[in-house]
Amino acid sequence: MALFVHKYGGTSMGSTERIANVARRVAKWARAGHQVVVVPSAMSGETNRLLGLAKELAPSKSQASYLRELDQLAATGEQASSALLAIALQAEGLQAVSYTGWQVPVKTDNAYTKARIESIDDVRIRKDLDAGKVVIVTGFQGIDDVGNITTLGRGGSDTSAVAIAVALKADEALIYTDVDGVYTTDPRIVPKAKRLSTISSEEMLEMASLGSKVLQIRSVEFAGKYRMPIRVLSSFTPWDIDLTEEATSGTLITFEEDENMEKAVVSGIAFSRDEAKISVLGVPDTPGIAYKILGSVADLNVEVDMIIQNIAKDGKTDFSFTVPRGELARTVEMINSKLVPELGVTEVRSDDRICKVSIVGIGMRSHVGVASKMFKTLSEEGINIQMISTSEIKTSVVIDEKYLELAVRALHSAFGLDNDAA
Amino acid sequence: MALFVHKYGGTSMGSTERIANVARRVAKWARAGHQVVVVPSAMSGETNRLLGLAKELAPSKSQASYLRELDQLAATGEQASSALLAIALQAEGLQAVSYTGWQVPVKTDNAYTKARIESIDDVRIRKDLDAGKVVIVTGFQGIDDVGNITTLGRGGSDTSAVAIAVALKADEALIYTDVDGVYTTDPRIVPKAKRLSTISSEEMLEMASLGSKVLQIRSVEFAGKYRMPIRVLSSFTPWDIDLTEEATSGTLITFEEDENMEKAVVSGIAFSRDEAKISVLGVPDTPGIAYKILGSVADLNVEVDMIIQNIAKDGKTDFSFTVPRGELARTVEMINSKLVPELGVTEVRSDDRICKVSIVGIGMRSHVGVASKMFKTLSEEGINIQMISTSEIKTSVVIDEKYLELAVRALHSAFGLDNDAA
Repeated sequence: MALFVHKYGGTSMGSTERIANVARRVAKWARAGHQVVVVPSAMSGETNRLLGLAKELAPSKSQASYLRELDQLAATGEQASSALLAIALQAEGLQAVSYTGWQVPVKTDNAYTKARIESIDDVRIRKDLDAGKVVIVTGFQGIDDVGNITTLGRGGSDTSAVAIAVALKADEALIYTDVDGVYTTDPRIVPKAKRLSTISSEEMLEMASLGSKVLQIRSVEFAGKYRMPIRVLSSFTPWDIDLTEEATSGTLITFEEDENMEKAVVSGIAFSRDEAKISVLGVPDTPGIAYKILGSVADLNVEVDMIIQNIAKDGKTDFSFTVPRGELARTVEMINSKLVPELGVTEVRSDDRICKVSIVGIGMRSHVGVASKMFKTLSEEGINIQMISTSEIKTSVVIDEKYLELAVRALHSAFGLDNDAA
Repeated sequence: MALFVHKYGGTSMGSTERIANVARRVAKWARAGHQVVVVPSAMSGETNRLLGLAKELAPSKSQASYLRELDQLAATGEQASSALLAIALQAEGLQAVSYTGWQVPVKTDNAYTKARIESIDDVRIRKDLDAGKVVIVTGFQGIDDVGNITTLGRGGSDTSAVAIAVALKADEALIYTDVDGVYTTDPRIVPKAKRLSTISSEEMLEMASLGSKVLQIRSVEFAGKYRMPIRVLSSFTPWDIDLTEEATSGTLITFEEDENMEKAVVSGIAFSRDEAKISVLGVPDTPGIAYKILGSVADLNVEVDMIIQNIAKDGKTDFSFTVPRGELARTVEMINSKLVPELGVTEVRSDDRICKVSIVGIGMRSHVGVASKMFKTLSEEGINIQMISTSEIKTSVVIDEKYLELAVRALHSAFGLDNDAA
C-alpha cells in the first residue's frame, strides 16, 4: 500500500462526464489498496468566467482589498469541482470527502492572487485516509493568518498537489494533464520528438521556463526542495487501463542524481518565441552603466533575460538585452524618453523577430564540447547566432525567428534525440 | 446614524449590471452616514446550476456524506456573488469586504441542507463597520462545530439577514425583493389589493404559510423571537430614489402590539391551491382512533393541515383531513392498504379540486362576529363551505377550487380591503 496524490487539471474536470471518469480512475487506485488524495482544478472555463464577471464590475485595480475579493471569488471554482468529485466518488461506492484550502488548512502568506504556501496541516487528511476515505483537497487556494482566502496564481493547483504530497510524505505526486509526458522538444515542430521516461528536476525547470508548459514551475521547485517525485501523465488514457501500466506511464521528474548517470548528454531542446531584443549603442563605458540601464528597465517591471555588453571602444560601448515581446514597445519608449537624453546614447535598435533556442541536459556538467557542437550544428545550417548565454545545464542562443524550426530540428537530431521508430 | 442589514435576492443579483445597481443603492445608504451590512443571495440560476451538476453525478442520496458535499458545492454561489458585490462597491469608491459564513463565523448545527443558526460572532463585522466599511456576508450558509460548511435550505438568506441583524442589534433588516411589499391579497386575483404599510409578525406568519411567498417563514419566526423589525421592499425601484422615501417604502413587519391598535380587523386574505381532502368513512368511534389514522399519515412524512371528526352515529364516525396535493396519491394508497383492513373502514373518498381561503387579522382577537361575517359573505355568493378551522388570528375554510377567485374577491371587499384608488 502506498500513498499517492493525484492532480487533475481543468480540462480533465471539464464536464460531469469527465468528472465521473476521474472518479473511476481514482477508484481504481483506491480499490488496489492505495491511499489517494486528489487535488482538482476548477472545471475548465470556470475561473475565467468568474474573473470575467469581476472585470465587468471593476476593470482593473491593484489594491489589496480588491485582490482579496478576487481570491474570495476565484476560490469558489475549485470548491465546487472538489465537491462534485466527492459526489462522483460516492456514486462509485467509495467513501469520499472534499476540503477547501481553509478546511485543511493550507496556510499561505497574504499575497492575494499569488500567495505562497507556508504550511499544511496533515491531521485531518490523514485521519480520513486512515478511515478508508478518498480525500479531495481544492487546489490553487489557501488561507492567510487572519482567515482570508488566498489563491496561488494560475497553475497553482500543481503546487498545491506537490505541497500536499510533501506534507503527507506521499510516495509520488501524479499530475494528470492533457499531454502524456515531457518530450525532448515540441512534437509539433519535431515529429520525431520522444517522450522522456524520466527527467531531472533541474532539467525540468529549464525546460518549463523555456516554454514547455506542462507544469507550473513553482511546483517543480517545491518538489525539488523536498525531493518529492512528480509524474506527469495523461488523463485521457482510458480510465480502466492496467494500474501498473498507468503507474509507470508519462514522465517521472526525479531528484536522485545517480538515476541520471546513464542519460544522454542533452535531454531536450527548448525554445521560446516570446522574445525581443533591444540594443543601446554608444553608451559611455563607465562603472554603474549596466545598473543604470537595467535598473530603469526593472523599474518598469519588465523582466530582462539575456544580456550582452560589448567590449568598449573609445570609452563607449554597446549594450544588448532581451525582454518579453509584449514589453518591447514600452521598454523602448522609456529608453528613448529617459536614457537617451541622460546617457547620450547614439542609437537604440529593437528587433521583435528573434527567438531563443536552448539545449538542456544535466550531462553537460560532465561533458565538454557540448556548446561548441551546438554552434557548429547551427553554423552548418547557415544560422547566425546573435546572442549566447550558458549555465551549468543549458546553453541558449538568440537567432532570427525564421530559423526556429530548422534550428530545433537540427539540434534534436545532432544530439541523438530523434525517435527513429516515429 | 443607524445600522441596517440589507438582503438582496437572486433576481436582484442576476447580472453584473444588476449587481452594480445594488452597489449604487447600498452606496446611497452608506453615504447618508448609515452603517450597512449586505446579505446577497447567489446570482439567480446559480444554485440550480450547481445542484443540477451534482444530480448528473449521483441522482439522489440522503447520506450525510453526500449532503455535506451538496452544501460544500451550493455555498459557492453566495461566496461568488458576495465577492462580486464587494468589487462593485469598491468600484463605487466605497470600502467593502465580503465574508463567507465560516469567516464571520455563522455557527449552525450540522443538519446539512437545512441547518439552523446557533450563533453569530459580531466582532469582525463590527470592527469593519466601525472602520467605515460596508460589510457583505454570504446568505444561506454557515459552519458547524467541526468546520464543515452547512446551508440553511432554500430561502435561507432571509433568515441569515435577520439573524445577522439580531446579532448586530441593527435598527432594521431590509429585505429587497422582486415585489414591493406584502399585499392584502394576491393582486393577480384582486386588482384592488392594497400594499400594507405595516403588518404584525403573527399576521405575516399566517400570510406566508398560507401562500404569500414573500419571505422565508423561518426568518419571520426568528425576527419575532428577537423583536427585529423587517421591511420588505422592492429592489427594482430606481437606485437613486430619495433615501427617506425608500426607507419608508414597502411593508414593515412589526413586533410591537400597540402599533396595531388602529388597524383593520382583517389585514389580508390568504389562499392556497396546494390542498387535497381525504375522507375516511365508517371509522369505529373508539379512543385513539384519530391517533391511529393521523399517526399513520405522519409516518409517511405527510403534513396534515385541517382535520374534522364528525359526530358519531351508531358507534361509527367519519374523519376528514387535508394534505398537500402532491401527497394525496400515496396517502390514499397507504389508507387503502393499511387502515381499511385494520379499521374496517367502509369508504375512502378523496378530492384534489379543493382550495383553502383564510382571513387573517390580529384584530380578530378583540372583535366578535368576524368568522360569521366570512361565512355570510361566502353564502351570499353561493359558495359551499366544506371544512372550517379557526385560530386566534385567522379563520380558514376549504371550498371547491373553482370558487377560489370569487371567494377571495368577495371577502376582500366585504372586509373593507379594496383599494378604491386602484
